[in-house]
Amino acid sequence: MAFVKPVWFVHPHLYLLFSNYTSLTPASSLHSLTAASCRENNRNNITTTGFQGSIFEDNGFVGRLRAIPEDDEGVDVAYLEASLAKHNEEGHGSDQKARKRPQVAQKHYKNIIYTVPTFSNPSGRTTSLDRRRELVRLARKYDALIIADDIYDFIHWNSTSTSLSPPFIPRIVDIDHVLDGGPTTSFGNAISNASFSKILAPGLRTGWTEATPTFIRGLSQCGSSVSGGAPSQFVASIIAQTLMNGTLQNHIERVLIPSFKRRYQVVHSAIERYLLPLGVVLEGKMEKSMQGGYFVYFLLPPCILAKQFVLRAWEDEAVLVADGDIFEVHGDEDAVPARHGVRICFAWEQENLLSEGLRRLGKVLANMLEPESCVVIGREAVDGKFLESKI
Amino acid sequence: MAFVKPVWFVHPHLYLLFSNYTSLTPASSLHSLTAASCRENNRNNITTTGFQGSIFEDNGFVGRLRAIPEDDEGVDVAYLEASLAKHNEEGHGSDQKARKRPQVAQKHYKNIIYTVPTFSNPSGRTTSLDRRRELVRLARKYDALIIADDIYDFIHWNSTSTSLSPPFIPRIVDIDHVLDGGPTTSFGNAISNASFSKILAPGLRTGWTEATPTFIRGLSQCGSSVSGGAPSQFVASIIAQTLMNGTLQNHIERVLIPSFKRRYQVVHSAIERYLLPLGVVLEGKMEKSMQGGYFVYFLLPPCILAKQFVLRAWEDEAVLVADGDIFEVHGDEDAVPARHGVRICFAWEQENLLSEGLRRLGKVLANMLEPESCVVIGREAVDGKFLESKI
Repeated sequence: MAFVKPVWFVHPHLYLLFSNYTSLTPASSLHSLTAASCRENNRNNITTTGFQGSIFEDNGFVGRLRAIPEDDEGVDVAYLEASLAKHNEEGHGSDQKARKRPQVAQKHYKNIIYTVPTFSNPSGRTTSLDRRRELVRLARKYDALIIADDIYDFIHWNSTSTSLSPPFIPRIVDIDHVLDGGPTTSFGNAISNASFSKILAPGLRTGWTEATPTFIRGLSQCGSSVSGGAPSQFVASIIAQTLMNGTLQNHIERVLIPSFKRRYQVVHSAIERYLLPLGVVLEGKMEKSMQGGYFVYFLLPPCILAKQFVLRAWEDEAVLVADGDIFEVHGDEDAVPARHGVRICFAWEQENLLSEGLRRLGKVLANMLEPESCVVIGREAVDGKFLESKI
Repeated sequence: MAFVKPVWFVHPHLYLLFSNYTSLTPASSLHSLTAASCRENNRNNITTTGFQGSIFEDNGFVGRLRAIPEDDEGVDVAYLEASLAKHNEEGHGSDQKARKRPQVAQKHYKNIIYTVPTFSNPSGRTTSLDRRRELVRLARKYDALIIADDIYDFIHWNSTSTSLSPPFIPRIVDIDHVLDGGPTTSFGNAISNASFSKILAPGLRTGWTEATPTFIRGLSQCGSSVSGGAPSQFVASIIAQTLMNGTLQNHIERVLIPSFKRRYQVVHSAIERYLLPLGVVLEGKMEKSMQGGYFVYFLLPPCILAKQFVLRAWEDEAVLVADGDIFEVHGDEDAVPARHGVRICFAWEQENLLSEGLRRLGKVLANMLEPESCVVIGREAVDGKFLESKI
């Protein structure tokens, strides 16, 4: 029982959604989102440019995930269109009716496209403006929802500036709002996810979603939110203070961006010094005019499996890095193989240890490249060893 | 990249899970839990003694929810068994194989039984020890998982004591651990959910799950947790301090229990004074030896629909209470009809306003009982009016 009091509403385009984003690895809980927006829809497909597979699988998409490769301009839209067209021809993702209560603002998309368009994880690549426009048009044509994790958009710099500024390239959701006269339905075809865990402190797991007012209305009707309010209301109330008094903005501009710019340079130099001479290839190299995010990604020489390399780095040199395999899409690994890829996160470890970490990685690689040990011992054997030693 | 450091593990029986529980209405986000434990299982059924329907529906259980009535001993186990047997005969919930990675500690239960066994929401009833044993045996027989929201177990008192003490009746998960030699599989058939939002502060949305070590291992593999850590790690780190220094225990014993005991008495007296003379029937009345929880539940006279009553209370007297309809199970409303039920939450509103609130409810009811206005105007009409005025 309560006496009626006034209630404040949030901006209709914005919804404080998660309990999601997280610490040193850039993970988003798309959990609530997929459950809310893909309710009961057991025939649609998800295409992804990497990552978050197990969250989608938890929400019932096992066996329906497809990997889409990237090139230097970002998402390979031609490949994506071929995949969507094939899916369409096969008759999947047929229209389904909303059955869940309350039946307000519900829409079943035939397809979901998940992407990190700016400073992607793991590749660090940024999808170009042209490609973003093509993505929106594709999404409209194939009844797809683009879920864009725009989590690194505030963390960027160039050679002369480290000031806090708007994203240097429009987000996909912005493009959907204006392209060719705006969204073709009131739901739109793109949403933007973002997180305070990436820009204020790891572990806050509080973020926001931006979409059309109709989509946001539907998202707000997620059962656990209707029943209990926003998942992160306590943390959100703390974060709100940092936004209002400028702490957050100062933190991004005076701490994060300058530090990340230095860190990126340190890591980049160390890779050039310790790894490139051993045959390592740097992927997704950023132009000096637009650098940002948390990651650098490189490929090992063809005779070295990343899983094996990561294991040796961990066992021999106490250095923890991510092997490309964990970003492969389960069930569609061969579309975007990553078994020679290694991701370096430069955002977490102490700045003065970054160069030492890469020196050790160079040592590990040099040892593995000695003729007698550079033997590809087969994926299963490596998998087995890695799992065994981790458990 | 990070240098390897030691890691602490939680007790294998306990898992800090949500981002869930919530403020003035007792809502749990079973969201993560259902997604994690019912992965891809699209044929099993959920039986419930009330509430949380939309969370299950978000996770794909639309059309597969069944309501189970209660009597004075709690869950009507005979009715439940008949429902499970019927479901079994119809061949639903067939065994399915786990397909999700990592394939550790996964089990598909044929059925899920959701219940608030102690001081249930909305009825306030407590399921007896005998019934709890029967529930566990039924769950084992029909391959069911009992999800027990044990959220009010620390909030109880009797006529002489308000001290903090263990639950006065064993939880279902405790019974499963020991009954007839203990769990019949390593997963067990019961888990216990609890929340700090109910005992420390509303809106914390942080709780814990207790189950067998194998079940907890599986639950910990939920994609969003593997990827990003516990959903509420920041809040959990604050709560941990209150546990270690005794703040939480003191708060329950010195603030909550004495206050709730007084509140319950105030509400109870006011109902006797203002509502019982008008034909209201108190449901789930608690013995003096075991009182607790947040709620009192009563039935209006047969000619008054709760939805209509709640609307009038809101519009005419600015008092907000919950009508029974919201606890009905979508698709199985007639099994446990609640359209004359009204739930009073005595935990939230200021203590000195509780009696005034009930006086106003009495005024509303008296007005509605005047011959010319006591007309049942049909459920749809009321639904329409209520929705319209709320939107």
